[in-house]
Amino acid sequence: EPEVPEDGRSLVFADLTPEELAQVVRYLRGSLGVPLVDASRAKPSDNCIASVDVQLPAKAEVLRFLDAGGDRPPREALAVLYFGDQADPNVTEYVVGPLPVPTYHRDVTVQKYGGKVPYHRRPTLAVEYEQIAGFFKSRVFPAAPSFMRQVMEYDGTSLAAVTAAPRGFQSGDRATWYILFQNVSGFFLHPVGLEVLVDHGSLDMGQWAVSRVFYNGQYYRDMAQLESAYVQGRISVEKVRRVPPDGDFSSMRPRAPWATTFPLQYEPQGPRYSLRKNHVAFQAWSFAFGMSVKTGLRLLDIRYKGERVVYELSVQEALSVYGSNCPGGMSTRYMDGSFGIGRYSSPLVRGVDCPYLASYVDVHYLAHSQEVRTIKNALCVFEQNLGSPLRRHFSNLQSLYYGGLVNSALVLRSVTTVGNYDYIWDFIFYQNGAIEAKVQATGYTSSSFFHGDGLRYGNRVGEHTLGTIHTHSVNYKVDLDVGGVKNSLVAHDMAFEMARAPWNPEQQIERPRLTKRVLDTEDQAAFRLQSKIPRYIYFAANSKNKWGHQRGYRIQIVSFAGDHVPEASSMERAISWARYKLAVTRRKEEEPTSTSVYNQNDPWTPTIVFADFIDNETITNEDLVAWISVGFLHVPHAEDIPNTVTVGNSVGFFLRPYNYFDEDPSVDSPDSIYFSSE
Amino acid sequence: EPEVPEDGRSLVFADLTPEELAQVVRYLRGSLGVPLVDASRAKPSDNCIASVDVQLPAKAEVLRFLDAGGDRPPREALAVLYFGDQADPNVTEYVVGPLPVPTYHRDVTVQKYGGKVPYHRRPTLAVEYEQIAGFFKSRVFPAAPSFMRQVMEYDGTSLAAVTAAPRGFQSGDRATWYILFQNVSGFFLHPVGLEVLVDHGSLDMGQWAVSRVFYNGQYYRDMAQLESAYVQGRISVEKVRRVPPDGDFSSMRPRAPWATTFPLQYEPQGPRYSLRKNHVAFQAWSFAFGMSVKTGLRLLDIRYKGERVVYELSVQEALSVYGSNCPGGMSTRYMDGSFGIGRYSSPLVRGVDCPYLASYVDVHYLAHSQEVRTIKNALCVFEQNLGSPLRRHFSNLQSLYYGGLVNSALVLRSVTTVGNYDYIWDFIFYQNGAIEAKVQATGYTSSSFFHGDGLRYGNRVGEHTLGTIHTHSVNYKVDLDVGGVKNSLVAHDMAFEMARAPWNPEQQIERPRLTKRVLDTEDQAAFRLQSKIPRYIYFAANSKNKWGHQRGYRIQIVSFAGDHVPEASSMERAISWARYKLAVTRRKEEEPTSTSVYNQNDPWTPTIVFADFIDNETITNEDLVAWISVGFLHVPHAEDIPNTVTVGNSVGFFLRPYNYFDEDPSVDSPDSIYFSSE
Ligand SMILES: [Ca+2]
Ligand SMILES: [Ca+2]
Ligand SMILES: [Ca+2]
Ligand SMILES: [Ca+2]
Ligand SMILES: [Cu+2]
Ligand SMILES: [Cu+2]
Repeated sequence: EPEVPEDGRSLVFADLTPEELAQVVRYLRGSLGVPLVDASRAKPSDNCIASVDVQLPAKAEVLRFLDAGGDRPPREALAVLYFGDQADPNVTEYVVGPLPVPTYHRDVTVQKYGGKVPYHRRPTLAVEYEQIAGFFKSRVFPAAPSFMRQVMEYDGTSLAAVTAAPRGFQSGDRATWYILFQNVSGFFLHPVGLEVLVDHGSLDMGQWAVSRVFYNGQYYRDMAQLESAYVQGRISVEKVRRVPPDGDFSSMRPRAPWATTFPLQYEPQGPRYSLRKNHVAFQAWSFAFGMSVKTGLRLLDIRYKGERVVYELSVQEALSVYGSNCPGGMSTRYMDGSFGIGRYSSPLVRGVDCPYLASYVDVHYLAHSQEVRTIKNALCVFEQNLGSPLRRHFSNLQSLYYGGLVNSALVLRSVTTVGNYDYIWDFIFYQNGAIEAKVQATGYTSSSFFHGDGLRYGNRVGEHTLGTIHTHSVNYKVDLDVGGVKNSLVAHDMAFEMARAPWNPEQQIERPRLTKRVLDTEDQAAFRLQSKIPRYIYFAANSKNKWGHQRGYRIQIVSFAGDHVPEASSMERAISWARYKLAVTRRKEEEPTSTSVYNQNDPWTPTIVFADFIDNETITNEDLVAWISVGFLHVPHAEDIPNTVTVGNSVGFFLRPYNYFDEDPSVDSPDSIYFSSE
Repeated sequence: EPEVPEDGRSLVFADLTPEELAQVVRYLRGSLGVPLVDASRAKPSDNCIASVDVQLPAKAEVLRFLDAGGDRPPREALAVLYFGDQADPNVTEYVVGPLPVPTYHRDVTVQKYGGKVPYHRRPTLAVEYEQIAGFFKSRVFPAAPSFMRQVMEYDGTSLAAVTAAPRGFQSGDRATWYILFQNVSGFFLHPVGLEVLVDHGSLDMGQWAVSRVFYNGQYYRDMAQLESAYVQGRISVEKVRRVPPDGDFSSMRPRAPWATTFPLQYEPQGPRYSLRKNHVAFQAWSFAFGMSVKTGLRLLDIRYKGERVVYELSVQEALSVYGSNCPGGMSTRYMDGSFGIGRYSSPLVRGVDCPYLASYVDVHYLAHSQEVRTIKNALCVFEQNLGSPLRRHFSNLQSLYYGGLVNSALVLRSVTTVGNYDYIWDFIFYQNGAIEAKVQATGYTSSSFFHGDGLRYGNRVGEHTLGTIHTHSVNYKVDLDVGGVKNSLVAHDMAFEMARAPWNPEQQIERPRLTKRVLDTEDQAAFRLQSKIPRYIYFAANSKNKWGHQRGYRIQIVSFAGDHVPEASSMERAISWARYKLAVTRRKEEEPTSTSVYNQNDPWTPTIVFADFIDNETITNEDLVAWISVGFLHVPHAEDIPNTVTVGNSVGFFLRPYNYFDEDPSVDSPDSIYFSSE
């Protein structure tokens, strides 16, 4: 039975319900005094509601409510408006409240970002991609009719276009390379050699234009130039055989007949966790969860035995930086938050994505449309017997006995499919008081058309397919509150001291000793990717455990990260969170996230610069947040076809009690096994 | 159904059967022409058979047999004899064969070690520990009667002694610190403050002597001096309250009543692997296994689709280096192989150590006795559904479909309990052709009596208990044979190149590119703990895959290792394998292991020096071996009581196909799931 009764207080963290989302839309349509077009149909020159998500109350307010008997904070929404139909087109963010029946909206844009958000920074709406697809069909392809028919064998539907991002070289640019693929299952692996740079910066779609064309290693001014070169026989054609609709080698259709069934897990006496609305309890653990349209899964108010350990544990961003000898590939630095890590949550398939017996939760969101959308089974919760001991000891010395405990843990999972990639986000709660955050990468790898010096940028994985080298970097926010909100950051490590053996002073002993250091400023607490990090680094409370040690929670990072981008890059500040494997800053209500969705389309004037959070403030006895980046270098190889596997492509971190308790709390688990010879 | 039929050929790698072990003992007793005392009763001045284990045939012979239709190699044993009853006491190793009825024995000591093995290097037999326990009881404790009775409350059985190791400062020393604990369940956590240095180097046990005594921070010449200081009231007594037999805080008896049962795994249609004698087959995988008395679990002839990938994958050593302000702790550098990683295999408990449904295998060994001993259920084999996808993709773009595969893998496991610690050794076979080796640490942590400046060496975890800082380092031998025995070692990584955008030469792009390097000498292929290692490093075959890439298997290491010991240390060469996270050497029949069981008791003149394997030989197109060291720094803390947990204390490595196949071989798995909107 869960130890922490749920009384609805965790609803303070709840995502907006479909009804609430609809109310906000209704309110905005009636209150803004400007024409609003449905975002699913809006032109760039229209106004529309780009997204509505919950606006979580300030932490101080929430803590007053949860811990000090204060009032329940009003329930509010954050609405993002694209104002294309204004003299000064811009993006405006409103806080709308109180729900369920809003009566006010407050423009928070300047307060949040120190100024207006220029319109060119706006994340690309689904409808803009449709408009670009229309532009391809009506104006790009028709400009090279012979080439498209004879070389591409284009029939009006046989090509799929994948967007690169960012979209240019300087603020204000909105010129995107599109990479063309055969429109089959797993098209990401079927490049046809054609890439087109589309300038879609104008609010007048009639002004959209092709800025450059790439085919099989050569650049052309536009499609007409490509066509004429082709017609004159001046281009080197590398014709790609059309593959069947299932994609041939990119297909995921089973090739072997279904045989005996793999092992399955069952719960002899039913589930041992409770899941009520946005609240989960499992043994001594409890937490609330939510799904941000932009940043994805977040956990709030994580408690062990009723005592809060983490206020917020949330995904912030997923970044991939690519290399290639094709223009789309070489300009790609995807910041998935801008596409919507939560919005692209995938429905989870029972028995594969999560165990059959898992509990599944739907997610509702409003983005890129004024209709509420529902993702069925977007989250799952389950207990997993990991098949090995959490701890065990077999005594074969003075007496014969055995004690142990299987490692059975609670998992909360979602999967994001942003285009080609699938990220599996796990948060795991162990019986010893540890929490693990883990992300595994799978799905299709990106590819470029194989030509020329392609092998400088990856491995060939198909006749015409270059699996392009790239990084994966993921950022998490971890607002640990260890024994209260005021914490310090302490580092423990080992050093050897040369000592004389006390009983034999001619003899030297190289003796390991414990080194201890309080990291008292943000600058000391920012660890660059390539730097050494103390092997034990923990959030320390003011209070002490039974043995006089500061109660703490340790951060242990598992990562194989490649470098993010050189700091000299004109866009580096937009992704400066990726400089650091760990950075601990003073928590600020005005530094809620490590990046902004506006950074993708204008990384040259980033709306949020994480590196600026690190301004050498003291961080002793303060409310602190850890920002953790993990990742790996991915050089796609034959075995990434059809999909990257999760084995070895798993990174994350542990939050582990370090003198937080007086002993391992799993001693209180009902799962203990013990027997002795007596 | 397993793809590789087993025809008994893998018995070439089999451990000796109880009958074979008995035959070797019978043969030796009849053939050596010297009196042999049973090792379980032998005095240091006796001759005895210390151990008998299988002597695996040379690789060339095995390959002739397995791959070239050659004869089955003769079956042989390796017998280790302690000759204490000789003019020049020594350890001699004999190869004895052929089994089942031996007719010859061959002294291989000089051939293996370049000289005789001096007697003082011999690993300590169980009987020697018993003899030392007798020495304590009859001669140490009686020398301080009042102290023992009044301070220690010693009643003849109420104390347990734990050995430190190594045993001195220079070759020939055999003087060991013994740390005394209350003899209760989990005594490792109940130091009483008394430690005794026993010189047991003499072959005449009557000459054994106490060299020094430590009590509560002070050193004494011997027990008599301690007694007299005590009687005269000149020592600071820190009396430890006696705990009940269950050890109180060190007890693993459950505190909570058994409640609902945790999730369990079942096999709807029975096991999908086959286990016959020492051979396992699972889908495309097959391998043989064995248990070395000294080094523990080993896997041999690992094949995927019938093609050998690894000739040998074996545990080599587990090392722990401790710091403390007590003499036993500060002199401890345990090399578990000397104690016997295989010999201390633990019986596995169904449902905790391995899943209920696992298959269990007994292990038979002969060591420290002339009787064969059996460890029931010392190995387990099972398939584990890991509860997350091996790969998956949900397409929400051009068409709606889903494909995926649950990550269900085969596990081979054993657990070693050497004294306080339990190491869980896993070898995991994934459906994508990857192998994982993983070791998790649990069991009791070592401790010192808390006094003085103890907090320089760890955390206090009990009234009188200091959890002492230490390292864990584990070494593996990985004899990959990728597409044949001749391999090269290749490193791939990423570097940024500054390029002009081809379509816009004023603009700079920082472009990731693939760097490639053949590491052609052993020196280039030796990566020290603190050094950078290329992110992709792989064994490359001469053959190529379908896309023209050298077929390869990549090594990916997961480790949080602390430094081993300073290289200036007089014993460093004995554990020089721990200098390197990865070292690749030319395989040599005469370099079968990275260390020797004789290194523990004479690390100052090590019998095997791993660092000497690295002598800059070229390693292109040779039979290569990777030696991998993984580990972590352990600063025990309150939550290590009663036992260290496995969460976060797990290290190891992956062997992953890298262009070895033409595509991910899991496409042939019968577990694939696929559905689409069509
Ligand atoms: Ca700051
Ligand atoms: Ca905090
Ligand atoms: Ca060599
Ligand atoms: Ca080899
Ligand atoms: Cu990737
Ligand atoms: Cu340890």
